[in-house]
Amino acid sequence: MGQTPITYIRQVIAMVAHPELIESSNLPKDAKDQARQILCGMSGHSAGAYTMSCGVELIRKNVAAYIEKRDGHKCDFNNVCLTTGATTGIKMVLELLCSSIDGKCPAVMVPIPQYPLYSATLVEYGLGQVGYFLDEDNNWGLDMQELERAHAEASKTQAVRAIVVINPGNPTGQVLTRKNIEDVIKFAYKHKMMLLADEVYQHNIYAEGCQFFSFKKVITEMGAPYCKEQELVSFMSISKGYMGECGLRGGWMEIINLDPAVQAHLYKALSAILCPTSLGQAAVDCVAKPPAEGSPSYEQWLAEKTCVLDSLAQRSKIIYETFKNMKGFKCNVVQGAMYAFPRIELSPKAIEAAKKANRPPDVFYAYKLLEETGICVVPGTGFGQKPNTHHFRTTILPQTELLAEMMDIFQKFHKKFTDEFA
Amino acid sequence: MGQTPITYIRQVIAMVAHPELIESSNLPKDAKDQARQILCGMSGHSAGAYTMSCGVELIRKNVAAYIEKRDGHKCDFNNVCLTTGATTGIKMVLELLCSSIDGKCPAVMVPIPQYPLYSATLVEYGLGQVGYFLDEDNNWGLDMQELERAHAEASKTQAVRAIVVINPGNPTGQVLTRKNIEDVIKFAYKHKMMLLADEVYQHNIYAEGCQFFSFKKVITEMGAPYCKEQELVSFMSISKGYMGECGLRGGWMEIINLDPAVQAHLYKALSAILCPTSLGQAAVDCVAKPPAEGSPSYEQWLAEKTCVLDSLAQRSKIIYETFKNMKGFKCNVVQGAMYAFPRIELSPKAIEAAKKANRPPDVFYAYKLLEETGICVVPGTGFGQKPNTHHFRTTILPQTELLAEMMDIFQKFHKKFTDEFA
Repeated sequence: MGQTPITYIRQVIAMVAHPELIESSNLPKDAKDQARQILCGMSGHSAGAYTMSCGVELIRKNVAAYIEKRDGHKCDFNNVCLTTGATTGIKMVLELLCSSIDGKCPAVMVPIPQYPLYSATLVEYGLGQVGYFLDEDNNWGLDMQELERAHAEASKTQAVRAIVVINPGNPTGQVLTRKNIEDVIKFAYKHKMMLLADEVYQHNIYAEGCQFFSFKKVITEMGAPYCKEQELVSFMSISKGYMGECGLRGGWMEIINLDPAVQAHLYKALSAILCPTSLGQAAVDCVAKPPAEGSPSYEQWLAEKTCVLDSLAQRSKIIYETFKNMKGFKCNVVQGAMYAFPRIELSPKAIEAAKKANRPPDVFYAYKLLEETGICVVPGTGFGQKPNTHHFRTTILPQTELLAEMMDIFQKFHKKFTDEFA
Repeated sequence: MGQTPITYIRQVIAMVAHPELIESSNLPKDAKDQARQILCGMSGHSAGAYTMSCGVELIRKNVAAYIEKRDGHKCDFNNVCLTTGATTGIKMVLELLCSSIDGKCPAVMVPIPQYPLYSATLVEYGLGQVGYFLDEDNNWGLDMQELERAHAEASKTQAVRAIVVINPGNPTGQVLTRKNIEDVIKFAYKHKMMLLADEVYQHNIYAEGCQFFSFKKVITEMGAPYCKEQELVSFMSISKGYMGECGLRGGWMEIINLDPAVQAHLYKALSAILCPTSLGQAAVDCVAKPPAEGSPSYEQWLAEKTCVLDSLAQRSKIIYETFKNMKGFKCNVVQGAMYAFPRIELSPKAIEAAKKANRPPDVFYAYKLLEETGICVVPGTGFGQKPNTHHFRTTILPQTELLAEMMDIFQKFHKKFTDEFA
């Protein structure tokens, strides 16, 4: 990770972990207040006790307030469930879909390319994977015809029960338009599918004119029947955004329009793994309820947050500009998230060499890059891509100076590679 | 939880969370050193980065050293995998056993009574549950005839692939003898079953003459073929012992004699959930490597640890002595862990009243107790028990004064209950 932690979050966690510091340290007053409040919400006023399986009620309420502010619509904290990172929530919700229907094997629609957690979890739970291709020529948006095609084909033999949308996209870096989200909601409603909205990059929006719309907001504003009937679970994490707190393992999900009996079952199933980590929850609280304007920590918090997000925006531009101008590369604007997923044209000779090396062409390219320069990218094969196209994912996380240097080395490598396999 | 946290653990975690405190605070030098070492082991020297999926290598090595010291035998840190509490590890290992064999449904032997995580997870993964009754008349030990009976019956229709042993016992509070452990190992070996040793209460040993023997130690000392072939996974947690750090979610498992390809698969599957929480791992490090004798924090650490364990030992006696002398109660010595699981005789009239209330007799009793006194115990039904016997689990966690008062109230309730349903 190239991200420096947000000081305020770490101060609060330190005090929740070791409450003596609230008295003995000279940490800021607002951080002390927040640590005290979090401790008050915890059983025995200690991070050492199990919390409720859905998380500390006070923190769930703060998350609900965050969502209300984000969307401009009500959020019931009973529908907010804290998790050990977004992963736990996603896995638990996918597990709900395991039953076959009318003898048909259950299946879930996932984007191609997709974040491999989904494909791995579908295999783990015996769920079918129904890939729908993102539309590379349209900024990796969701194409309704393609969704219908994928659904129709799969429905011949499978019960397609849910659709996963990742927005902003991983590994593709797109930010969906409001219109696109509305279309997806109608599509899910029409086919009676649950909607899983992976919105962990909701703070990571860089490109001009792009705005993050949560599925919850759009569904609410579309009115009936969608706002009352469409099942939706939205996932959030503290590992992304301006926080980058991957190691602390914190996140939440908001559950909309789920059958109450199913939701009760989900909460019961969660209780078997006891509770999300208390200190991860404390970090979630800081994300949901950051320092208020005028409070002692506000200026520093804002400066750090802005610095991280501005720097990511700058890096997203560097990556895009570099790849865009490289021969044989095609790269969409990195509108959000933390990745570029450029397409590379590989010559017949390079493809031939890859075949000899017994590797898919994109894997062959990525290995060459790694071996010759030390730069590590993930081949498109790991995420899925249209047949006979070649991509790789690279993050925008390296620090700006390093990134510029890296892109320079990358360009030289690519030229050499292209010459070698011309 | 009635446990006060160990100061040293919290100091280290606070500094790992907010490294500035290493310079700015007057926390003890040894805690600072340990925090610094942990940070050095973490990517980017920060708790904010994902760690390896099996945990920070430095901490795994410290756990391996802890195990070596505990058992007097070598431990390879590559076989130590840090987890988000013991639960994650247990679930991942059970999931390995999901494949049917020769068309027979896979199944796992679990003690009755048992900790409900096991029954819940077996249902979740479609594994059969093969209950073996613990021998109440023999201090809840494992009876080999009973194990053979359970195995033989189940094997007619199922592929019995593993046996779970909880030592010290939850909810039964026994500490297994070395002889008993040897017998179980021979039994598992004979029937080619993996052994899952839930040893999370290994620090909680109270009764005179009782000693904790890890399955790893016993298997090693039994020599070939057991030490070389018997598959064993042992689980540990920071939620128990003298630490009681339930909310932090930390633990580990040690994997012995697993097929390397299976172990590699397990580690790969773990990578899908990214990593155990970094601050939970920091707490694990403190448990594996507590302050050394002579270091600034040693005296306080030892005093706190001793205080917790002595107090638990005292409470285990209070509970045992009280229940032992109550009419209609039968209670084994609470040798270890944190629970008593007394057996209660319920009169025909009480059983009749329970039937009318549409509740199992033990649940009826527990509800009456809760409603009339506010004391909460878990009915034996929740853990399993021999047909027509009635038990409940109570913890030894309430503080000693509260516990004495509670036992007093309990006695009065029981007398009243007995009179009412005489």
